Amino acid sequence: MDDGTIYMGVDVSATTVKAALVNADGEICEITQEAIGDDPGVVLEGMRRSVERLRDRASERRWPIRSAGVGVPGLVNARTRRVEVAPNLPALVKVDVSAAVAELVRCPVLVENDANMAAYGEFTCGAARGRSNVVYIAVGTGIGAGVICEGKLYRGSLGFAGEFGHMTVDPEGLPCACGNRGCLETIASGPNIVRRARERLFRDRSSSLSSLALPGELTPERIATEALTGDDFSLMILEQTGRWIGIAVANVINLLNPDMVVLGGGVMVAGELLLNPIIAEVKRRAFAAMAAQCEIVASLLGGQAGVIGGAMLARDTFG
Amino acid sequence: MDDGTIYMGVDVSATTVKAALVNADGEICEITQEAIGDDPGVVLEGMRRSVERLRDRASERRWPIRSAGVGVPGLVNARTRRVEVAPNLPALVKVDVSAAVAELVRCPVLVENDANMAAYGEFTCGAARGRSNVVYIAVGTGIGAGVICEGKLYRGSLGFAGEFGHMTVDPEGLPCACGNRGCLETIASGPNIVRRARERLFRDRSSSLSSLALPGELTPERIATEALTGDDFSLMILEQTGRWIGIAVANVINLLNPDMVVLGGGVMVAGELLLNPIIAEVKRRAFAAMAAQCEIVASLLGGQAGVIGGAMLARDTFG
Repeated sequence: MDDGTIYMGVDVSATTVKAALVNADGEICEITQEAIGDDPGVVLEGMRRSVERLRDRASERRWPIRSAGVGVPGLVNARTRRVEVAPNLPALVKVDVSAAVAELVRCPVLVENDANMAAYGEFTCGAARGRSNVVYIAVGTGIGAGVICEGKLYRGSLGFAGEFGHMTVDPEGLPCACGNRGCLETIASGPNIVRRARERLFRDRSSSLSSLALPGELTPERIATEALTGDDFSLMILEQTGRWIGIAVANVINLLNPDMVVLGGGVMVAGELLLNPIIAEVKRRAFAAMAAQCEIVASLLGGQAGVIGGAMLARDTFG
Repeated sequence: MDDGTIYMGVDVSATTVKAALVNADGEICEITQEAIGDDPGVVLEGMRRSVERLRDRASERRWPIRSAGVGVPGLVNARTRRVEVAPNLPALVKVDVSAAVAELVRCPVLVENDANMAAYGEFTCGAARGRSNVVYIAVGTGIGAGVICEGKLYRGSLGFAGEFGHMTVDPEGLPCACGNRGCLETIASGPNIVRRARERLFRDRSSSLSSLALPGELTPERIATEALTGDDFSLMILEQTGRWIGIAVANVINLLNPDMVVLGGGVMVAGELLLNPIIAEVKRRAFAAMAAQCEIVASLLGGQAGVIGGAMLARDTFG
């Protein structure tokens, strides 16, 4: 199917901009990544540098870029294509991201929620290839999701569908940045896994993590590493995290009866240590027939799901 | 649009069979209803009698029945069209409902989950007419839902989607018949509203309901009636019920970003006394942009949503 056509996928997160040139088969031909901070200028500057670098690379190789898809961590209005809410990257609100990118690459550009992009990547080229009804969940700094219904990206009325991380799982729980309390995100996002670990380490000094007193030293990746080497405390933290995520996944399975749930995002570096308790909790809670028929798997494309999904969504939207 | 064509809609619940002849505009021309018990013979017998009565009525009037839709309280496998799980009417499992009805009316017959049918009724002829993304929720003996995505009934991979009543809202809550614990249904279904009221009445004797000691005397309808006449205890029970339902509705709004949520089912006789606390809780919990754009309303078709939806789904499926 690779006909020489090239698409650009851009994935903007709270900390990095990733951009790639992708062929019609979803294979990455060039990729670039750079760190950004949450400053309007820096975010846009980083995005522009990445896009320009790839544009020039494509031009050297005489690859015309057909279209581009940009994923952002926020609610993207499906009609105006503008970012309306972006708690983890407020700089994006009120900036016309697609116009800014289109000015550089001179091709059709779409802007989409980052979890929707990654979901589309897994659906077209990754773990969920060939499935019809898929829920992709990204567990990282925040918790987002993208929903595929009957083989199409489901956006909802405004384009805001998929706010899985703000499902109430503990009605009397902690306040969340979204205004609600007891959202899954207040328990199971990267920063909240660290918060829970830190709170418990005051009481439990047996873990090899207990010496990590300074902020920044204790990270979800570090907890995953310790768990992989057998640290009981870290295993317990991941187990509990998985159970909470599993409650929310069971809810979504009972509601949408998907044939697959894909878990991605930075926190999934923990792999089966997080996946297994999620699956176990789903078996305890979801309808047996729906749980048995729904595969729950780790992302196949990992950190590249977003750029691949962006390119594929551009391909399938603009041709 | 009424071209003389007639469709049959049948709505089987745990206690009654309702059946109607409906024209192409969704208007009821004839309707019949009869009480059944949960005995395999009685359910099927009741269903047969209702269908035969309407068939004969149609025949007298020289109305040929084009097709029929039958709603049942259970999980209907979308491929086999058989009822797989029916906790509130186990007699339906293993019976080929569509074959039984087709033998009587000699036209194409489809079987569908009752909440899906009612959702389709509200979507085509009721409160949600003209909307694209709708969640219909029926609060009665059980709590079910039907989901309309992008103008189509969404069934999920097996046809089991919409089990909204089994969303975990209280992870440590009471065991549910489905095998989970803390499902919305364990708190807010008709029988559980009565259970909660009864448990509290042991402590609070000030309500006019406190004299109703015998099972059967205390019903959701009775609680609604007392609340409408100003009984504080009944108002409090409805208020708390609405808050729990509101948590689950907020979750579904954040996940699916619908343009409308329609509430139906027997418990909704309480009207605004239940609807208002639901709306208030949604405002507290869902993303403001999604909550503001999503109307939350009571069913327009009430107890006829199922038969109208069944007829309209048959119309749109078989032509």
